[in-house]
Amino acid sequence: MTGSGRTPSVRPFLSSSASFAAGDDTPRAFLERCLEAHAAWEPQIGAFVHTNFAAARAAADAATARWQGGKPLSGIDGMPVGVKDIIQTEDMPTEMGSPLFAGWRSGWDAASVTALREAGAVIVGKTVTTEFAASHPRGTRNPHDVKRTPGGSSSGSAAAVGAGVISAGLGTQVIGSIVRPAGFCGCVGYKPTVGAINRGGSLDYLSQSCTGVLAATVQDAWQVAIEIAARVGGDPGLPGLEGPMQPPAPVKPRTLALLETAGWRIASAEAKAALEKAVERLKAAGVKIVTRGSHPEVEAAEQAIAEAVSVSVRINDWEWRWPLNSFHERDASKLSRVMLDRMARTATMRPDDYRAALTERARARAVYAKLAGICDGGLTLTAPGAAPVGLESTGNAVFAVPGSMLGVPAISLPLLREQNLPLGLQHTGFAGSDAAAIGIAAWLVQTLGGEG
Amino acid sequence: MTGSGRTPSVRPFLSSSASFAAGDDTPRAFLERCLEAHAAWEPQIGAFVHTNFAAARAAADAATARWQGGKPLSGIDGMPVGVKDIIQTEDMPTEMGSPLFAGWRSGWDAASVTALREAGAVIVGKTVTTEFAASHPRGTRNPHDVKRTPGGSSSGSAAAVGAGVISAGLGTQVIGSIVRPAGFCGCVGYKPTVGAINRGGSLDYLSQSCTGVLAATVQDAWQVAIEIAARVGGDPGLPGLEGPMQPPAPVKPRTLALLETAGWRIASAEAKAALEKAVERLKAAGVKIVTRGSHPEVEAAEQAIAEAVSVSVRINDWEWRWPLNSFHERDASKLSRVMLDRMARTATMRPDDYRAALTERARARAVYAKLAGICDGGLTLTAPGAAPVGLESTGNAVFAVPGSMLGVPAISLPLLREQNLPLGLQHTGFAGSDAAAIGIAAWLVQTLGGEG
Repeated sequence: MTGSGRTPSVRPFLSSSASFAAGDDTPRAFLERCLEAHAAWEPQIGAFVHTNFAAARAAADAATARWQGGKPLSGIDGMPVGVKDIIQTEDMPTEMGSPLFAGWRSGWDAASVTALREAGAVIVGKTVTTEFAASHPRGTRNPHDVKRTPGGSSSGSAAAVGAGVISAGLGTQVIGSIVRPAGFCGCVGYKPTVGAINRGGSLDYLSQSCTGVLAATVQDAWQVAIEIAARVGGDPGLPGLEGPMQPPAPVKPRTLALLETAGWRIASAEAKAALEKAVERLKAAGVKIVTRGSHPEVEAAEQAIAEAVSVSVRINDWEWRWPLNSFHERDASKLSRVMLDRMARTATMRPDDYRAALTERARARAVYAKLAGICDGGLTLTAPGAAPVGLESTGNAVFAVPGSMLGVPAISLPLLREQNLPLGLQHTGFAGSDAAAIGIAAWLVQTLGGEG
Repeated sequence: MTGSGRTPSVRPFLSSSASFAAGDDTPRAFLERCLEAHAAWEPQIGAFVHTNFAAARAAADAATARWQGGKPLSGIDGMPVGVKDIIQTEDMPTEMGSPLFAGWRSGWDAASVTALREAGAVIVGKTVTTEFAASHPRGTRNPHDVKRTPGGSSSGSAAAVGAGVISAGLGTQVIGSIVRPAGFCGCVGYKPTVGAINRGGSLDYLSQSCTGVLAATVQDAWQVAIEIAARVGGDPGLPGLEGPMQPPAPVKPRTLALLETAGWRIASAEAKAALEKAVERLKAAGVKIVTRGSHPEVEAAEQAIAEAVSVSVRINDWEWRWPLNSFHERDASKLSRVMLDRMARTATMRPDDYRAALTERARARAVYAKLAGICDGGLTLTAPGAAPVGLESTGNAVFAVPGSMLGVPAISLPLLREQNLPLGLQHTGFAGSDAAAIGIAAWLVQTLGGEG
């Protein structure tokens, strides 16, 4: 397998792992196929900052022995995963996409990484993040067209999963950093309810940020998330991800809200047509679709999320005051222009500005939550079109930011195409009802998966 | 000044700083007096893990120049402070009271430290914490009797402030780690509403933990807290400490609830008598005192906080799963017996056990909040008696843990005595109403301060 000229294929795990139990395949052999894909793809896509193949092979061998002994540690025992490089690992540096942290090591594993290891997952390496998981990109390319961005900030996890190098990658999202790159790279992106997965040990202090999973399938994404939450919970003080220890079965939604978001005006005609075609197929399958035109509750939600970018930026700016002031003090020359501009903005903010933005966010969340009375969730794009050409920008987040601001589960499904490239169909659920959202997402894949 | 045989005196800052403006004193001269006290006391009390006097002197000189130029950065410009050693500092290691982190450096300043520097405070050093701010002590001694514990976990900040070595120290409290040592060491301890001060950059992930201040006076404690919050806010997603940029004036409460807590049964006769005498003085001053016997709302609150230790331990245990599992993986031999025991307990916990404990806590908080309908806050001891003899234990936290579990402002005031040693009078306020609680605390000091 080589990267050039081939359409990459994702690498599902759960559906393969039955063969581990049967003895037809082993986690070590699975890993070696991943490492072959890595050798082929990595020079083209640059998805990893650091790798530790020796540790990965040792972990895969241990997993192989457990499967052969009939005692796997979990559903993801032996799964090759990548870890976004803002999440700390004991055995590899955590550079956070910043020259300020070149070679930096915390000395411990983050909560999610500890849980992955306890579940038997095979940590292949650290995947590229934009600077501090914000917007300044760090060179990763899209495996579907290496002239294009993979999206960000979970750039490396999306590219590596999209290329079939790993089965899953940890990502984080505060604006659009999971569903956007997943959509661009043709994999599943699952951003849980905010706080559902413990962020301890991640440089990720923002109040609407969330650890999530990029994976080959909806089922793999759920399994990774629930295995982590079962072991280290959610953010302290919150209930953490709740749901079954097996992937929820597909559940047909009765009603979905088609959400235009502020992105509709700038979405490409082809992207809108792709979404509308999917909607027609859903209607044909018996799903009721409600819109801002048909239902005042949807119109209210559209209005509530219209300012999602502005509200989110104000909240994030204040929450970046620290550590940005500390980083700036240390070496301002190693911060990107984007971060220096942010610092200039935060300098004029006052606590009351932040409190006002929190109040706006809470109001938007309350309005969206009322949608649960009339539908089973939302449906929209993950971006205005396929990944843009160039590596200077990670693409527009306008379709992704509402889910971030609302703190709801948001799942990008690789079900649409634009310019003959992947484009995500995004399902948004309701806060705390992640398992239901995953069930609907699985049904959407089942029902629409023939397309594209 | 030498430590032995002298009663230490705390070192108020705000009331002194007028002389900086007048030119009668300078921050550098103030610091040098602190460093003389450090030289006299430190060999006896062991309050610091690391110091950086060169940086402190440079900061004090800069503050001196600002005061002389009539442009201090804040009310605490030039204030000598200590930083509890779970809170990260760029220029000193952060060892967290654990041999596992001997010499460990994060490379940056925590949010609170960044804010202190921006406000012009003079960071003298890192103060001793028990292991990971839990219960295993690290040798600090009480300046009022070096055979006794200073309390914990903010042991070094309490001892250093109590000895007059510094004007204020940062502390953190999840069980009793600010008000208990403040009470034992004869200084003011202010634990704000949970989340009121940004904990970024502190090894302090527990949901009811809170950064706070140990200081010579109520006014100093407020000023340090509000200067931090004004610059870096509270924990992300929360409004942060709200109130005036000057210390609130003393406010006489109309009604206070005398809270026995689960500690009443084990408090010494002398401690109870000291509290009862203070209550009589308050009554004489016209404050109405309500009790579990006189008001069903108080009885309900007493019942709600009766299980505070059990609820808090269950919540903390789960929240310690990570990073304790990561620390254990790294080197279990460097963990105390207390931490190994905790790890054994957490191994049997499930997410639902944690969620049940969160529900209990939320219920207790709701019951206590109703007290606001009948009184201006609570009044109790900070410990069953003065600091116990010996350094093996940091003393009983039974009086302190209700305030921690409730997430309300709790202020220890050095107004009582037991065995001719300091004992704290604790005022508990209502969540988010910190300025009101500080105003009442200031009035309590004004009114009861004549008592030895």
